[in-house]
Amino acid sequence: MPTLIVSNQRTEEMVGDLELLDPDYRRYVGNQAQRMAWCLREGDILVLPMPADEEFLRYVADSLGIERDSVRVIVPPAGRVGEGLLSRDRLTDEGFLAELREAVAAQGTDRVLPFHFDSTVAELTRMLGLDRVTPGFGFLDQSGGRLLNSKSTFRALAGGVHAPVPEGGVFSAREEAEAFLWEGLLSQGHPAILKQDFHVAGFGNEIVSPVPGVDPLGARRTVVTEDREELVKYLTDRWDWLTDGGRNRVVIERYVPESVPIYAEVRVEEHGVEFTGHGEMRMKPVLNGLIVPAPSAELPAFPGFLDAVRLLCEPIHAVGYRGIVSVDAIVTPDQDILINEFNCRTGGSTHIHRIGERVVGADYFEERVLVELRRCTFPPFATAVEALRTHGLAYDPATRTGVLVTVDDGSPTGGFGEYVVVAEDADGVRELELAVGELFAAHGTED
Amino acid sequence: MPTLIVSNQRTEEMVGDLELLDPDYRRYVGNQAQRMAWCLREGDILVLPMPADEEFLRYVADSLGIERDSVRVIVPPAGRVGEGLLSRDRLTDEGFLAELREAVAAQGTDRVLPFHFDSTVAELTRMLGLDRVTPGFGFLDQSGGRLLNSKSTFRALAGGVHAPVPEGGVFSAREEAEAFLWEGLLSQGHPAILKQDFHVAGFGNEIVSPVPGVDPLGARRTVVTEDREELVKYLTDRWDWLTDGGRNRVVIERYVPESVPIYAEVRVEEHGVEFTGHGEMRMKPVLNGLIVPAPSAELPAFPGFLDAVRLLCEPIHAVGYRGIVSVDAIVTPDQDILINEFNCRTGGSTHIHRIGERVVGADYFEERVLVELRRCTFPPFATAVEALRTHGLAYDPATRTGVLVTVDDGSPTGGFGEYVVVAEDADGVRELELAVGELFAAHGTED
Repeated sequence: MPTLIVSNQRTEEMVGDLELLDPDYRRYVGNQAQRMAWCLREGDILVLPMPADEEFLRYVADSLGIERDSVRVIVPPAGRVGEGLLSRDRLTDEGFLAELREAVAAQGTDRVLPFHFDSTVAELTRMLGLDRVTPGFGFLDQSGGRLLNSKSTFRALAGGVHAPVPEGGVFSAREEAEAFLWEGLLSQGHPAILKQDFHVAGFGNEIVSPVPGVDPLGARRTVVTEDREELVKYLTDRWDWLTDGGRNRVVIERYVPESVPIYAEVRVEEHGVEFTGHGEMRMKPVLNGLIVPAPSAELPAFPGFLDAVRLLCEPIHAVGYRGIVSVDAIVTPDQDILINEFNCRTGGSTHIHRIGERVVGADYFEERVLVELRRCTFPPFATAVEALRTHGLAYDPATRTGVLVTVDDGSPTGGFGEYVVVAEDADGVRELELAVGELFAAHGTED
Repeated sequence: MPTLIVSNQRTEEMVGDLELLDPDYRRYVGNQAQRMAWCLREGDILVLPMPADEEFLRYVADSLGIERDSVRVIVPPAGRVGEGLLSRDRLTDEGFLAELREAVAAQGTDRVLPFHFDSTVAELTRMLGLDRVTPGFGFLDQSGGRLLNSKSTFRALAGGVHAPVPEGGVFSAREEAEAFLWEGLLSQGHPAILKQDFHVAGFGNEIVSPVPGVDPLGARRTVVTEDREELVKYLTDRWDWLTDGGRNRVVIERYVPESVPIYAEVRVEEHGVEFTGHGEMRMKPVLNGLIVPAPSAELPAFPGFLDAVRLLCEPIHAVGYRGIVSVDAIVTPDQDILINEFNCRTGGSTHIHRIGERVVGADYFEERVLVELRRCTFPPFATAVEALRTHGLAYDPATRTGVLVTVDDGSPTGGFGEYVVVAEDADGVRELELAVGELFAAHGTED
């Protein structure tokens, strides 16, 4: 199954108007598109928004045990919002399409795996004649991706299967939102999170709290509204933003501070739902990193969470979606687990699980701990990898431990590199991480 | 299961702004709310937007074999859009709620059956403490009704189960809509129907055709656009209306003139999907009337249609909806059957099937033909029923044939009455219908 991988990390259907994204953030997600290189198999095609370092591509191919030269990497010309995003104009560019058609024919491609299967990818799939062979195309082609990418759809489906979710609802009238917010949450001392219906990565979320000091994890900011008048003022100011000018609805939920975000990732396939793995956002010692598997898996509530994930995926399977689903939840300070979102697309964790399965080995989930770090600054790629090798820190297939650079940032500013530390346990991770930190810091000062 | 029946025939979530509905149309749907009286069982409560004639209510109860006095009928005070619609302000009116609470307690009500389970009915259900016992509440409470009431959701779900649908798609960009319309349909000589995402009864639909003479069945009008320039002009003029000011997307499908509309109605219940029946819109001799069962059931394509209905209901069941689903389709001149919509609510046909099951008898679907006529003018109710009896036309439980008045219009203007003719076959229907027409016409001239 030679696959066309399209690393469209942000799309119009995920975030609304792409032009509103900060240029620095566009470059960040453009760089992070390299994550999908870890999904490559022999004979695949990878479409990236920005060119990747050839040495990095060889390193990924070697790590995965495939021939670099069996794989085609294509970058379409920069588009109306620059080079960080695979915007619609880039993916439908005539020259790019001609090159892609030739590559698809040469590689015998018969499957499309984008980061997000939006209407542009659906069009691309049809233009390449791959619509009939792509699983779930019937649903995705008729705007199914947008349907499942909606936070109000999540609330309805979770309600339908009685999944444990934070107290909340879906609102289109400001007055009803106000009544629920004040009477149901704020006057009881609980903060609330307000979510735009279509947005990702917390950029469409804000928190209102009756008390100061609430950290806005998963949201842009916290606004303190101590009485109903302040709440009304906040809603008056922000309703237009929250509803995208009245276009959409707003999901409002109780926000539980000091909770730990976790996720479970599955693949919804024709025959049913396959479990991929789970992970957790690391909160300490720094708020950076994904831990796989999730340490919360030890909690009594965790099996119930996995049951709810399975239940939630039944309607997602039934509507005809095929592909990756990431179900996000929080572990509250009371050690309850509440599901607060799902994403029917490739996740920020997908490549970590691919590395686990294909580099570390099938039993990685039982035998190893993987910690991913983001927004890091390295020396230039070849130097960084060489330094890891020299110091015995590079990933070693013999011990099945060590460090893999997962995303390279060769730009002059840097800062968007990513790596994964593989160890036998949490202590091993800590040691390796410390050593890598010191190594890269030392290199940093040498420059 | 004493039931609270709320005959909210049009809601904000079905049609958008209720104030935009023509006052005459509001009165029409307010009157037609009487249809749900045919869903009454012993001990139920019926909420109507406008009072019904007491003699009519006794007639319905007698026909159904229940005690009129076991049933409570409640009409809330007129609201901001008058008395034809059960708008949100009416269903949350304090005095009405007090009366309803008392009635629910007295009757031991444990179920809510609205025409449309929107967020207002969800709130009402919760205020009455019936949320935990109402099947599907978890889904409906979290905006599930709006989700399923969307025409783009229909397209995605139909795509997901590969149901036979007209060629088409879901569009948010005008340029893409134009390209599909022109290249895919109009330049090939095919008309197209453009549908607002949220609207009922064809009020949100328009047809564009490359040739004149296309009858706008299921739409407001046909616009002839002979070349691409005219199409662009039409889209420029109407895009704002079609997308409700950019709020929603537009479903565009090939429109097949001279097709016959049919439907199948089912009940989605906890244990699975139960078939209720099917019917067809009568096109000749007049475009008025529902025929049950659908004469098209004889066609070779019909079993495939019923299979597709079952497949489509799987995701509807899986997402957690519980209640009535009506799946609409067309029979094309080539005798293909293409599904073009579903409605997850009580249908305009539901009461006909209730009359079949409960008045005519369980085998009505095999043994009888029912034809419903709408927008009729009768003499005053008691006079009409007496005249039917005198002339031997009234429904007779002995022969299981005859005429039932299903909706009374006692207003000075009249014109919104409805009745059902029950006969052994199409010939019997024709005879009875002719006799009733003559009888009522004679009475009309006597007035």
